[in-house]
Amino acid sequence: MITAQQVKFIKSLQNKKFRHENGLFVAEGEKLVYDLLDGSLCFRNVYHTSEWEIPTRARNRNYQQVSPKEMERISGLVNPSTVLAVIEYPNYEVKHSELLESLTLVLDDIQDPGNLGTIIRLADWFGIDNIVCSLGSADAFSPKVVQASMGAISRVKVAYCNIPDFLREIKGAMPVYGTFMDGSDIYTTSLKPKGLIVMGNEGSGISREVELFITSKLRIPNFAKNRESVESLNVAMATAIICSEFRRR
Amino acid sequence: MITAQQVKFIKSLQNKKFRHENGLFVAEGEKLVYDLLDGSLCFRNVYHTSEWEIPTRARNRNYQQVSPKEMERISGLVNPSTVLAVIEYPNYEVKHSELLESLTLVLDDIQDPGNLGTIIRLADWFGIDNIVCSLGSADAFSPKVVQASMGAISRVKVAYCNIPDFLREIKGAMPVYGTFMDGSDIYTTSLKPKGLIVMGNEGSGISREVELFITSKLRIPNFAKNRESVESLNVAMATAIICSEFRRR
Repeated sequence: MITAQQVKFIKSLQNKKFRHENGLFVAEGEKLVYDLLDGSLCFRNVYHTSEWEIPTRARNRNYQQVSPKEMERISGLVNPSTVLAVIEYPNYEVKHSELLESLTLVLDDIQDPGNLGTIIRLADWFGIDNIVCSLGSADAFSPKVVQASMGAISRVKVAYCNIPDFLREIKGAMPVYGTFMDGSDIYTTSLKPKGLIVMGNEGSGISREVELFITSKLRIPNFAKNRESVESLNVAMATAIICSEFRRR
Repeated sequence: MITAQQVKFIKSLQNKKFRHENGLFVAEGEKLVYDLLDGSLCFRNVYHTSEWEIPTRARNRNYQQVSPKEMERISGLVNPSTVLAVIEYPNYEVKHSELLESLTLVLDDIQDPGNLGTIIRLADWFGIDNIVCSLGSADAFSPKVVQASMGAISRVKVAYCNIPDFLREIKGAMPVYGTFMDGSDIYTTSLKPKGLIVMGNEGSGISREVELFITSKLRIPNFAKNRESVESLNVAMATAIICSEFRRR
């Protein structure tokens, strides 16, 4: 049995303001919740119907069985699944010492939740442990991003901060890469295994303020015959190609 | 003034069956239509409101001004734009002679319109002129794919055919690449500049029947520390990385 107050509370987490106030987010779907249960996130509640099977390896969580009707009331999905989890925000802090020893993605106002989710998934694939997002970026714990990241959100640390301030503090300690139309060919430029890779906003690219901190401007060459007519690459595609280039070396 | 019959006809093109019967598809949005008008597609009609400006370089098309209310009636978008074009299917045929001289993507049942649109856009970027799709793939001329391809659909030739039959005919003439879990590392394997790259279905990968024709199995290495837990790459991401690898050589 689930109370009207619980329903109201869980539904409120679809909204960024309430997620932040409560430090909680929602994940739905069998595969996603199973995957997240394997990670290190703290689960507040797991609501599930009788159809869903509690995994033996995570027996100790706070499970509550609900009816399919109740699941419909708390779900944010058009087609509710058999399980919905309420999870605590991990509240990662940006640790400079850790970043100095690795490759990190810095996102300068990525707006689209699908792009952010895909980028988190790419970071997971390429063994990039940290993503630092500008305060104007999409919320990594919104239902859409969590869904698109396919569980990678439990393995990749996503932190938010003021990017120019962050780059000012780290200045000189490691290379800061960014892609620009007039950058040097990424396929032939020397790339360091430790550094920051800045990815810019979908429409306007890397902001002027952040551009000042870039130490190495890169460009993904365009192989089209009629280069004038070709659109720029989507930011998630560009991230895939850049991460692949950094890792293959 | 637009007739009820016209409205009904244009709206019917949201549906694959009617698109195929009539050999026509719809493109909406200012940027997209401007972009497509630069290409070689045949426009049947261009419906636009008074707000939309007819481009001087394409003055000779069949333009018809409609009211915003009429635009709402013919549009498939939640927020109709100022222009909607009805365009003829290009009906590309697969020309073996052309494929033998280039790099081509072969899609084995790509289902998601967003993925297909992104792959068409990647082909455009990487100068890949032809995409050959299995008959079970998403329709490249559905409104969602046209939207996601951002005009690339007018520059990249997308043809549909029975893939095993196609591969049987071309057998021995050129390498056929495909990605598999047990393939060889794409970063170190020799890749030919001319060949076919097969991308498999989102859920089930490359089908058994198509796998028999693969002459070079590739693998995109996973750099995660805990490789067991990482999801496979989305097919559009994998396509981005593979195309990048083929082109940089």
